[in-house]
Amino acid sequence: MTDLKKMGEQAAAVKLTLQNLREEEKNDALLFAAECLQERNQEILDANKKDMEAAEVNGMSQGLQDRLKLTKQRIDAMAEGLQQIAALPDCIGECIEEFERPNGLKISKIRVPLGVIGIIYEARPNVTADAFGLCFKTGNAVILKGGSDAIHSNTAIVKVLREALENKGIPGDVLQLIEDTDRTVTVEFMKLKEYIDVLIPRGSAGLIRSVVENSTIPVIETGTGNCHVYVDRDADLDMAVEIIFNAKTQRIGVCNACESLVVHNAVKDSFLPKLQEALAEKKVELRGDERVREILPDCIPVTEEDFGTEYLDYILSLKTVDSLEEAIAHINRYNTKHSDCIITENQEAAEKFLNQVDAACVYWNASTRFTDGFEFGFGAEIGISTQKLHARGPMGLKELTSYKYTVRGSGQVRV
Amino acid sequence: MTDLKKMGEQAAAVKLTLQNLREEEKNDALLFAAECLQERNQEILDANKKDMEAAEVNGMSQGLQDRLKLTKQRIDAMAEGLQQIAALPDCIGECIEEFERPNGLKISKIRVPLGVIGIIYEARPNVTADAFGLCFKTGNAVILKGGSDAIHSNTAIVKVLREALENKGIPGDVLQLIEDTDRTVTVEFMKLKEYIDVLIPRGSAGLIRSVVENSTIPVIETGTGNCHVYVDRDADLDMAVEIIFNAKTQRIGVCNACESLVVHNAVKDSFLPKLQEALAEKKVELRGDERVREILPDCIPVTEEDFGTEYLDYILSLKTVDSLEEAIAHINRYNTKHSDCIITENQEAAEKFLNQVDAACVYWNASTRFTDGFEFGFGAEIGISTQKLHARGPMGLKELTSYKYTVRGSGQVRV
Repeated sequence: MTDLKKMGEQAAAVKLTLQNLREEEKNDALLFAAECLQERNQEILDANKKDMEAAEVNGMSQGLQDRLKLTKQRIDAMAEGLQQIAALPDCIGECIEEFERPNGLKISKIRVPLGVIGIIYEARPNVTADAFGLCFKTGNAVILKGGSDAIHSNTAIVKVLREALENKGIPGDVLQLIEDTDRTVTVEFMKLKEYIDVLIPRGSAGLIRSVVENSTIPVIETGTGNCHVYVDRDADLDMAVEIIFNAKTQRIGVCNACESLVVHNAVKDSFLPKLQEALAEKKVELRGDERVREILPDCIPVTEEDFGTEYLDYILSLKTVDSLEEAIAHINRYNTKHSDCIITENQEAAEKFLNQVDAACVYWNASTRFTDGFEFGFGAEIGISTQKLHARGPMGLKELTSYKYTVRGSGQVRV
Repeated sequence: MTDLKKMGEQAAAVKLTLQNLREEEKNDALLFAAECLQERNQEILDANKKDMEAAEVNGMSQGLQDRLKLTKQRIDAMAEGLQQIAALPDCIGECIEEFERPNGLKISKIRVPLGVIGIIYEARPNVTADAFGLCFKTGNAVILKGGSDAIHSNTAIVKVLREALENKGIPGDVLQLIEDTDRTVTVEFMKLKEYIDVLIPRGSAGLIRSVVENSTIPVIETGTGNCHVYVDRDADLDMAVEIIFNAKTQRIGVCNACESLVVHNAVKDSFLPKLQEALAEKKVELRGDERVREILPDCIPVTEEDFGTEYLDYILSLKTVDSLEEAIAHINRYNTKHSDCIITENQEAAEKFLNQVDAACVYWNASTRFTDGFEFGFGAEIGISTQKLHARGPMGLKELTSYKYTVRGSGQVRV
């Protein structure tokens, strides 16, 4: 059985080295690691083949098999990810704030790594390289626990990355993979509080719930998105159709896709037929309330459960309201605090919505699909936080850091 | 049995009202609440008397009884605390950052309340008013679970505060107290994830551990401080004695008191006798390693366990080292990431220590006792965070907030 305590100690042992690497050293290692991934792609592809064969035998769904499968192009994309991270500015050591107290104490708030980050994810081997890159650039050691279905792929990728680091004189233990696929190890990992500063689950709602329930380590909860678009009485209806079409259908399996539509009763007659026509192109199933079904008779009746569901599919729930306030109340009740949008030409309504809807990202006249670290200009993303502690919304490099106060005195004592 | 779900719903129902209170309304309510505490102090003192009588019967220690006891002066101090919070600037609604993307999206990062804060604490009724004030000023609803030994006092204080709020037209449910003293209710409270955004335990190490282990709500861990002072070979020894005397003895029961001393071997001969003499005044028990005992023969031998102990008493552990690096390694091994200090006249050594010691606050030539929201100039404090997620070190008003992104577009969709 994996000795997790030992892995924790190994991570702790390299923390200081890692924190003090210069920006150039980190970037140089990232670029070399990218090169090694490309040069040694055959090793990785061979390992991935084993995972794919097992997946076939185990009857893994086509969708999951697609996420598991690696190709030369996909390995190139991993390498490119590391190159992009190398190109981003280093924020470690940055002085966030500085002030002097009346007694002469000089206090500086300095950005530091979180320390050791644990990441638990499913059978997506691209996350392995990506998570390493983000943690390494921010001076964090990382311990990965990937899905057991991707174990050969992950082991091969981690081997290449660790050897690349060691070649550059950096201890390989800044990146460790738990190779044991036993589920009890995962639970034990979530209790490794002495060594791990933060645990980030990436994957399905079930995985995230399990981590939140079992972990004694502080968790950043990512992911679930029951995103709403509200079409106000003063909406530009053509814009509304375009935004909803994009938010619902551009990519259905993602957390920032639109799942629920709220429509002001005053515009439903003219709006709903337009929308139905547009969404028919992608065969989106509509589930609406009574008043929606008066206009769209072939629409399926919506249930209470639908309002709370993240479909991740070509399905959209529809609710009519009589006022902006009713829309806001409905959204605050059913959303997952991820991303919600108002379509309106009325600035007052928009500002009220932006202010009162409780979500990480609240949009006015734009697709919810923009909730993304790259789209926000962060250059990278470890996930979308749906909690309010520490980080909210897209998390880039800065969200993988903490701070410390350094206090310089000349003999001050407290009276 | 207390209906916690109902309390959660009540807190959720007032969130929006609370978030949108203007600064003047909040300050006015805080000042009025302070006035009511003073005017109705007899009610509170009568309730406290019941708690004190029960404490006597239950054989509560004198130290704990002292923390539980209220007097007119202590109620005045609570009121003054609320007045001080009213005088602090309101940070809710502040625009933290603003940027425009190439596609024209205007993104603003706005400071918002965390939402609903849960606070679990021991039998210190002053925390009740204090926690309310900090949460209210930052637009958070709060649900309190105080120690069962203080139940009458807490109930009386909460009654006065809620009535003060209602008198000002603010729903009393922004402040709720769990009056049930059954321990199973506390455990259930820690799982109220649907309604509570953050849980803050305030109290003993045991209480904090229990919350960390049982809570499914994100926790901010506060408190435990095994703080070190390191006397470098280049220390001003008189300054060292003064700082250690202050850090060890000015107040022993607090988390920022010094518990462990690390001394460079090169200065131990001249330093240790001076220190012993100074600490003798307060009868501080010294526990040292072999080399310390060569100089101070009556010093008790130190154990491995001592190095990791937060005494909260007139006891100090002493360890000698041969280098700055050894001191740093020792401290990083045994500290609780709270506050540690180097005494030296050597800038290079100081900077290395400030950089490499992993703690919320790292001091150069100043007492660790300064780790405190008031001493840092925050004007208030909800606790000292010893975790790295969200907040580190003294937590003032800003540390009780989160943020949201508002995104203004003109029909942008993702390609």
